[in-house]
Amino acid sequence: MDYAKMAVDMVLKSWNIHVSRATKFFDSKTDEELLKEVAPGKNSLFYLLGHFIAVNDSMIAIFGLGERQYAHLDEAFVNNPDKSGLPMPDAATLRNDWKKSNEILAAYFTKMSPQEWHSRHNSMTDEDYAKEPSRNKLSALLNRTNHISYHLGQMVLVN
Amino acid sequence: MDYAKMAVDMVLKSWNIHVSRATKFFDSKTDEELLKEVAPGKNSLFYLLGHFIAVNDSMIAIFGLGERQYAHLDEAFVNNPDKSGLPMPDAATLRNDWKKSNEILAAYFTKMSPQEWHSRHNSMTDEDYAKEPSRNKLSALLNRTNHISYHLGQMVLVN
Repeated sequence: MDYAKMAVDMVLKSWNIHVSRATKFFDSKTDEELLKEVAPGKNSLFYLLGHFIAVNDSMIAIFGLGERQYAHLDEAFVNNPDKSGLPMPDAATLRNDWKKSNEILAAYFTKMSPQEWHSRHNSMTDEDYAKEPSRNKLSALLNRTNHISYHLGQMVLVN
Repeated sequence: MDYAKMAVDMVLKSWNIHVSRATKFFDSKTDEELLKEVAPGKNSLFYLLGHFIAVNDSMIAIFGLGERQYAHLDEAFVNNPDKSGLPMPDAATLRNDWKKSNEILAAYFTKMSPQEWHSRHNSMTDEDYAKEPSRNKLSALLNRTNHISYHLGQMVLVN
């Protein structure tokens, strides 16, 4: 049994399922519907779309894969809550960013070996990793998957 | 590197974090607050508490670990939606079931070897497993973790 590869297959499968679910959800909404909030005064679907793009894109930096393409979304969609008044792209741009950012991540992920997935990421020190090697790039992807799941649960309440 | 053990450590850690978060959340609510719905006409916190107990308890059967202790909750909390009118335990009982069911699961999980975690579960055929060995007991636990995350996202909207 190649346990390293099995672990990567398991987490990547879960990741891909969640990205697909989010994509289907956003695709099913009109631009106007994206402005709906998951609960009164809470995040809009539009905010969560930008939030996903920026949070997921940050893996490129954390994993040391290359240059982030969507860091410009951090201010409005990660560092600040919804309705911050900060400039945001229009819906068409954000929808396109979501598709494109997932293609970019998928292209990087395909090239990563199971050993690379199990290695330390840049938000950890060598000491962190020595103490807890199961905290690695793969577990960071697992956390990002849970993050999508958490907000998906909220998004469906808009239906 | 013991990749089999690393994968188990990674998923169990994520599982334990989510169980703890749910526990903290439910503990912070009065019995009356448990009756609140995550959105108008949607699941109550009380229903989700029973839902978690029953869905998680089913792993005991699916993994072939022993006898389920909370199968009697399936009818009201899994097979039927909230407000079914089916008999439900009182809040004190359900809170105790949640704690106890997590202790039972933790006791089983502690005894499982990494190899056992990576083996086929009872909802899969031998052919399923041969085709996709990363679909195993560990991936079922990962899915149950995502399930908690999904509903936790909804539960916090009640605050």
